Amino acid sequence: MGMIGGGPGSFIGPVHKMAAELDGRMRLVAGAFSRDLNRAREAGAAWGLDPDRVHPDYGSLIAAEALRADGVQLLVIATPNHLHFPIAKAALEAGLHVMCDKPATLTLAEALLLRDIVAGCGRQFGLTYTYAGYAMVREAREIVRRGDLGAVRKVVVDYSQGWLAQPLERGDHKQAGWRADPATGGEGGAIADIGVHALHIAELVSGLKVDRLCPDLSSVVEGRLLDDDCNMLWRFDNGAPGVMVASQIAAGDRNGLRLRVYGERGGLDWSHDRPDILTLNWIDQPTQVLHAAAPYLSAAGRAPARLPTGHPEGFIEAFATLYRDFADAIEGATPRPGAGVPGIEDGVRGMALIRCAVRASRAQAGWVRLDEAL
Amino acid sequence: MGMIGGGPGSFIGPVHKMAAELDGRMRLVAGAFSRDLNRAREAGAAWGLDPDRVHPDYGSLIAAEALRADGVQLLVIATPNHLHFPIAKAALEAGLHVMCDKPATLTLAEALLLRDIVAGCGRQFGLTYTYAGYAMVREAREIVRRGDLGAVRKVVVDYSQGWLAQPLERGDHKQAGWRADPATGGEGGAIADIGVHALHIAELVSGLKVDRLCPDLSSVVEGRLLDDDCNMLWRFDNGAPGVMVASQIAAGDRNGLRLRVYGERGGLDWSHDRPDILTLNWIDQPTQVLHAAAPYLSAAGRAPARLPTGHPEGFIEAFATLYRDFADAIEGATPRPGAGVPGIEDGVRGMALIRCAVRASRAQAGWVRLDEAL
Amino acid sequence: MGMIGGGPGSFIGPVHKMAAELDGRMRLVAGAFSRDLNRAREAGAAWGLDPDRVHPDYGSLIAAEALRADGVQLLVIATPNHLHFPIAKAALEAGLHVMCDKPATLTLAEALLLRDIVAGCGRQFGLTYTYAGYAMVREAREIVRRGDLGAVRKVVVDYSQGWLAQPLERGDHKQAGWRADPATGGEGGAIADIGVHALHIAELVSGLKVDRLCPDLSSVVEGRLLDDDCNMLWRFDNGAPGVMVASQIAAGDRNGLRLRVYGERGGLDWSHDRPDILTLNWIDQPTQVLHAAAPYLSAAGRAPARLPTGHPEGFIEAFATLYRDFADAIEGATPRPGAGVPGIEDGVRGMALIRCAVRASRAQAGWVRLDEAL
Amino acid sequence: MGMIGGGPGSFIGPVHKMAAELDGRMRLVAGAFSRDLNRAREAGAAWGLDPDRVHPDYGSLIAAEALRADGVQLLVIATPNHLHFPIAKAALEAGLHVMCDKPATLTLAEALLLRDIVAGCGRQFGLTYTYAGYAMVREAREIVRRGDLGAVRKVVVDYSQGWLAQPLERGDHKQAGWRADPATGGEGGAIADIGVHALHIAELVSGLKVDRLCPDLSSVVEGRLLDDDCNMLWRFDNGAPGVMVASQIAAGDRNGLRLRVYGERGGLDWSHDRPDILTLNWIDQPTQVLHAAAPYLSAAGRAPARLPTGHPEGFIEAFATLYRDFADAIEGATPRPGAGVPGIEDGVRGMALIRCAVRASRAQAGWVRLDEAL
Repeated sequence: MGMIGGGPGSFIGPVHKMAAELDGRMRLVAGAFSRDLNRAREAGAAWGLDPDRVHPDYGSLIAAEALRADGVQLLVIATPNHLHFPIAKAALEAGLHVMCDKPATLTLAEALLLRDIVAGCGRQFGLTYTYAGYAMVREAREIVRRGDLGAVRKVVVDYSQGWLAQPLERGDHKQAGWRADPATGGEGGAIADIGVHALHIAELVSGLKVDRLCPDLSSVVEGRLLDDDCNMLWRFDNGAPGVMVASQIAAGDRNGLRLRVYGERGGLDWSHDRPDILTLNWIDQPTQVLHAAAPYLSAAGRAPARLPTGHPEGFIEAFATLYRDFADAIEGATPRPGAGVPGIEDGVRGMALIRCAVRASRAQAGWVRLDEAL
Repeated sequence: MGMIGGGPGSFIGPVHKMAAELDGRMRLVAGAFSRDLNRAREAGAAWGLDPDRVHPDYGSLIAAEALRADGVQLLVIATPNHLHFPIAKAALEAGLHVMCDKPATLTLAEALLLRDIVAGCGRQFGLTYTYAGYAMVREAREIVRRGDLGAVRKVVVDYSQGWLAQPLERGDHKQAGWRADPATGGEGGAIADIGVHALHIAELVSGLKVDRLCPDLSSVVEGRLLDDDCNMLWRFDNGAPGVMVASQIAAGDRNGLRLRVYGERGGLDWSHDRPDILTLNWIDQPTQVLHAAAPYLSAAGRAPARLPTGHPEGFIEAFATLYRDFADAIEGATPRPGAGVPGIEDGVRGMALIRCAVRASRAQAGWVRLDEAL
Repeated sequence: MGMIGGGPGSFIGPVHKMAAELDGRMRLVAGAFSRDLNRAREAGAAWGLDPDRVHPDYGSLIAAEALRADGVQLLVIATPNHLHFPIAKAALEAGLHVMCDKPATLTLAEALLLRDIVAGCGRQFGLTYTYAGYAMVREAREIVRRGDLGAVRKVVVDYSQGWLAQPLERGDHKQAGWRADPATGGEGGAIADIGVHALHIAELVSGLKVDRLCPDLSSVVEGRLLDDDCNMLWRFDNGAPGVMVASQIAAGDRNGLRLRVYGERGGLDWSHDRPDILTLNWIDQPTQVLHAAAPYLSAAGRAPARLPTGHPEGFIEAFATLYRDFADAIEGATPRPGAGVPGIEDGVRGMALIRCAVRASRAQAGWVRLDEAL
Repeated sequence: MGMIGGGPGSFIGPVHKMAAELDGRMRLVAGAFSRDLNRAREAGAAWGLDPDRVHPDYGSLIAAEALRADGVQLLVIATPNHLHFPIAKAALEAGLHVMCDKPATLTLAEALLLRDIVAGCGRQFGLTYTYAGYAMVREAREIVRRGDLGAVRKVVVDYSQGWLAQPLERGDHKQAGWRADPATGGEGGAIADIGVHALHIAELVSGLKVDRLCPDLSSVVEGRLLDDDCNMLWRFDNGAPGVMVASQIAAGDRNGLRLRVYGERGGLDWSHDRPDILTLNWIDQPTQVLHAAAPYLSAAGRAPARLPTGHPEGFIEAFATLYRDFADAIEGATPRPGAGVPGIEDGVRGMALIRCAVRASRAQAGWVRLDEAL
């Protein structure tokens, strides 16, 4: 595989590399990690890449790899948001599979275009909505799907981070910088960076789709151009109410994603603080705590485990599970139980969320339909 | 003290008795526990009351006590909501102090009337917003007040119960019955029963007032007349966003009240699951966990403790702390640090919340001002 | 009831009063709270006692109450350990029931004498091993008794406090003072103060008796006369191994009592940090978390509840449950499910533990039988 | 690197591969995964190895690799215990570095021989005491080393698993089988499998050495030849008491390793249940909870982090941290802060523990010195 962006020193680039290689199904062999070719080469060297396969930009990488018998088949996009679309388009059109960071693109319009491209190209397009790779998230989805909770009545998802409680973007904090700049991050701040995760996991586990939303986005830190705090009421397509909180000014919080889904008979509770457990609260029955890799899990919940129960797997392993599923999809292997890599449809929904939330919040429009943006 | 309603077998009546008597400052000596005089007398006997001081209704109790040299000075109202106002009015006008269950009254109009009565009667009126009696809630308030967190930027309060996930009111569940009936419970269901708690604790700890709200109330259980699930966006008077969840259909949840307040420098997190601790998350500093009764707490946080640290106090003790503060207020004693019994102003705000939330939600009105109801 | 020792300002005296009165079954009406009669009277006044019933010592209290038609029937002993025996003896011989703080007496010899006195006097003798009053401890006992775990294979009990990590006894800390002095505390320090709790809860829940023990007691704080840290291996009467930790120099710990009992099919885990839950871990089945007052508990586990599930009860309520059971026993009422007040047999075992542990540890004797002291 | 044993399907073999390769410093290129060459080749193929580098035994692997210009420099030993010594000896003598599973060898005598071999061979020998790779264990060590807790006064380490609560070794459970057989596992069961981990982490973090021990080992499951439950009293070289629990019959427990170290001013608490946090309890100060990868950690605690705080790393990453340190050691790179791979000295101590504990327990010898075995 090749990677654009995400050289050593970035957060997500090394995660892609470690995750993709963890199960021995892929290997990073080419990259365009920086527009500064010296920096890109240093990065490539640090990762043991052949210097000939390190490029200053995605165009040259795609062109050069196409000429090699052993050229990459998969391109990973780990750049700021504004580059997702052009790179994905070029890669897919060059016959490469693409694994892309979220959100899918800079704008909803791009995402809709990309959907058409993906539909027509015969290649796989995956989006790293990481949380979809956690075993206990998959177990949660299976529990809902199986009907254990009865009909879903309510969903609460809360994704609270504190890392942008201060105006880091005014310093030289690269990740804060491009995220806070509409030219590179898009029209959404926290909603684009983590709100789309919250939407995805809520829909994935509940099996429902958000139909309407009533958003309240703020730029809490003075002078910030994009939202850094998002709160939102939802109604799902079955009428069930929902609440979504996504904040990057929740000072002191680390990376606190928590999902609760309530049904007629009980509720489930998963939190990224302790990703290896899933709590099930039942009406008039003892609470159950399910542990990753335990034998009593569903096939879907067990499949991601690489280790015996009691041996924690974390973020890299969840990411790796997406890559393993992606490798299966590329190779046309039978999917493992519960497998699934988020794709362009998920990406479009995320972009529609950003679009709707930003506009409706700005207009103080109250409730809007998610698909009105589509 | 005397009590109206709440005889043995009810949830809250015994709590009032145990809490009021815990610190030896008050004693239950008279009551009108049931309109059925036989049942009332049984109740009185079970609690060791003089049969002469057990009455079939509040009117006769107030009249009879007024004739006694040792007549009660304080009347506790532990009835369904529709009786709060007439009893409180009668008691205050008879020169009694009143401790009343929440919500303050059946309607906002009654609450406003009661406010005038309280203002003019020279007697104390207290509302048992229980959570205001927890030591660590008071510590939290003090931490915010002292400025440790910096300016408050966000408040999230979540009060999720599951006990009404099924239509208990159709059976002979007394507490579910009157709460689900507009004639006895008022126009609000979950919003009136627990939403007012959530508003109170959020305002109490943050030191802010909710200015605007955007509610979404549902009757999730089919055929239920009043709301059983409430979700709400808030904006406080300093512009800070807020989120409120209050649900009684959160199947499997017990009595899960959790409050988070985020400021510029960190956030605090308190949960009724574990009421004896308060968690403080800080930007770039270790998380702190404060324990009830510890020597490092503020005077306000320490004052409620009856036991050394590590010896849990619970719901009855929190309730008792309100009664102890109330006794001090009645006696004109110097208030203990951090003391305070919620009063009619808090009650009016709660009733305004119910009013606004029910109307605005029904009208799908989006954002409304809380004080527009006033 | 009357009380010796434990006036306002002490830790345990007010706990006895609040707990005994909580359910309205008893009332404190007489006391000898201090040898200084002025202090005793202040204490009595603060608690609303008739000054005539406040005495300078237990002898005069017992004598005076015996002359009253409404004299007390129950005497609570909340003094340092060296007074337990003489007071209990005098009270029982005067026809009073006795509720006594642990450990039972100053010496094992006294405990054995007291056992004979109790056997012959026709009065109730209770010991406030508080943890036996927690609902979830009773549920735990019932779960083991019912055989859910299969045969018990291992018990681990850990009671770690940090309050004596510093030499408080050298200052004017009254509670540290008498505990650290062999003349008033006896030959055991931590082993007498909390080790006996650990033994009691371990035997109570497991249904087993400690047969042999291999102790290691230390005086970790320099200059301390008695042990402040106890670690011990056990073998129960069915051969199962056990581990006991009791420490008062576990710096930073509050009052951390945790019990684990492992059987053939699973294990239970209860901790005083969170006394309202009981965790059951099962082989190849999801972990279960049981909550106090939940409908699915056994009758024994449900009986202590005063509040609905989700409304925490704490230390005072656990203590009160012992008093409620004691009132039932005194009145000859049918015991509630799971009821039981620890008595002199439990007290004798505790004193035997102290005796064995102190001697065997001093002698570096390795394993000794608990009943060799008897 | 090459690996002996641990082919796909084993627990620890894939962990070695994933961990060693995670940071891109090593790659598995040769192996002798099974004595059955067909199975070994399948394993090699699954991992993408050149079939020429897959061998039926360690001898042929070492010989063949020695002939290659690109032959492996490091041999990983992931076999049952009885093969550790001969393989390590052969590999070291062939000039290879060795990374070996714990316990070091089958017998203490072998470990002592191996120590001499390591001392003389100029090659690195590492032992995968995994828990030494966790960031928060390293932070804990640094906190103690820095003196924050004051002098260490007590250590409690508890490693409770339940996977051998049933006689799995009688079925075809491979891992249970060789562990339960003295010929392949050695004279220790749980003490050898997990007790050595407990000793290592206790000594590593406390900075102390166990001087004396008083063990109680049992074979709780009927018919089991080796111990499956170990409880032990310790005294460290500074006189501080310690307690060690290591059990594989703690039914329902997963892989629960918990370490507490108490000093004069406070105590630390780390648990593998939640490896990303470290709790510090202080006398009369709020409890602190430290989170992995946070900026306030020591250099030693920060160094292992691959991800931002709030993104959990787990068992594979801890293992990988040992491999990264090992790669640095092999290459002679400056060690990262807090780096360190357990080596043969740690291995010898572990073997001495097994030796002492088994003998002293069998002889009911009470206290013995750990170094009497040496």
